[in-house]
Amino acid sequence: MIETGARRREIDDVASELFRANGYAATSIRDIARALDMQGASLYAHVASKEDLLWAIVDRAATAFEMAADRAADETSGADAVERLAALVEAHVEVVTTDPGRSSVFITEWRHLSGGRRAAIAGRRDAYEARFRETIADGISIGAFGATDAAIAAAFILTALNGIATWYRPEGRLSADRIADHYVDLSLRSLTEASR
Amino acid sequence: MIETGARRREIDDVASELFRANGYAATSIRDIARALDMQGASLYAHVASKEDLLWAIVDRAATAFEMAADRAADETSGADAVERLAALVEAHVEVVTTDPGRSSVFITEWRHLSGGRRAAIAGRRDAYEARFRETIADGISIGAFGATDAAIAAAFILTALNGIATWYRPEGRLSADRIADHYVDLSLRSLTEASR
Repeated sequence: MIETGARRREIDDVASELFRANGYAATSIRDIARALDMQGASLYAHVASKEDLLWAIVDRAATAFEMAADRAADETSGADAVERLAALVEAHVEVVTTDPGRSSVFITEWRHLSGGRRAAIAGRRDAYEARFRETIADGISIGAFGATDAAIAAAFILTALNGIATWYRPEGRLSADRIADHYVDLSLRSLTEASR
Repeated sequence: MIETGARRREIDDVASELFRANGYAATSIRDIARALDMQGASLYAHVASKEDLLWAIVDRAATAFEMAADRAADETSGADAVERLAALVEAHVEVVTTDPGRSSVFITEWRHLSGGRRAAIAGRRDAYEARFRETIADGISIGAFGATDAAIAAAFILTALNGIATWYRPEGRLSADRIADHYVDLSLRSLTEASR
């Protein structure tokens, strides 16, 4: 008998990859069961609905991003805004490259959640983006970053980071660490005084 | 009798908004017909299939991005890489803010095209991204931009710009021109020498 926790994790992994590749709406429970070599009915012994599966994936990804940001904030709690933003960017890229499947579903497919779940994730996404926005605003206020619009800058950077989920492959040209270095540099530079 | 060109444009507009809001896979021809106050059968007098509708939207958006980039390149043909990249970024933001519906479908839903159409759009997307990558590489080679990975930098900037399509509203806090100014600054600054 297969251990339920591991089996459920495997189901989430396969569902993440299918949602990422084809989108939530275009993926059926049958598609997921087929990819797992299961019958649809057997899959329903593990998950109540396709939306429950989406919720599990998105909730886990949201938690991964939040925990990584918490750790980054702890590790740089006495530092200036530049170091704190660098740590947030690095943490975000690490989550995306560690689990591009779930990250991608969190980034693009969460809108298919309904009602309270959708509202809960929207709120957590806003709170998460606020960490970036507030760190950027701190940096502007101490003159470490050029005067800019903190909300626009946070959207610019976070969207750019999220793009990694669409193209990252572990066997690609650049390692996850090297990608993180590049994205930290690009993000921090984007906030320096204009050279133009 | 309604003029066909205008009617077809209206169908594309409504389909763009539905694809953008709910995704291509989750939108049916019936949903589109309902939003247009038409019968599904009447809609089929204008379009052969849902994929034909997607193709029309994506092809038009691709052409808009390409034409805007051509104009930007023409207007800055003698200028240095910094000015040429600024013009490309500004042109891209203008297309996104002028038609966020089609832009958004082009950016996220094109993968639902099949066969030759999908391959054609993938090729046009690559060629479009290459304009950014080559301009950045030129800037690095003349020392106008800090040494970085031109492919990573192009992906970073283009993804950030595309994010505008997900949140831009004409009635929002910032005008399209102001958003373009911010994004040009953020993009150029991201390529300056690191201040860290």
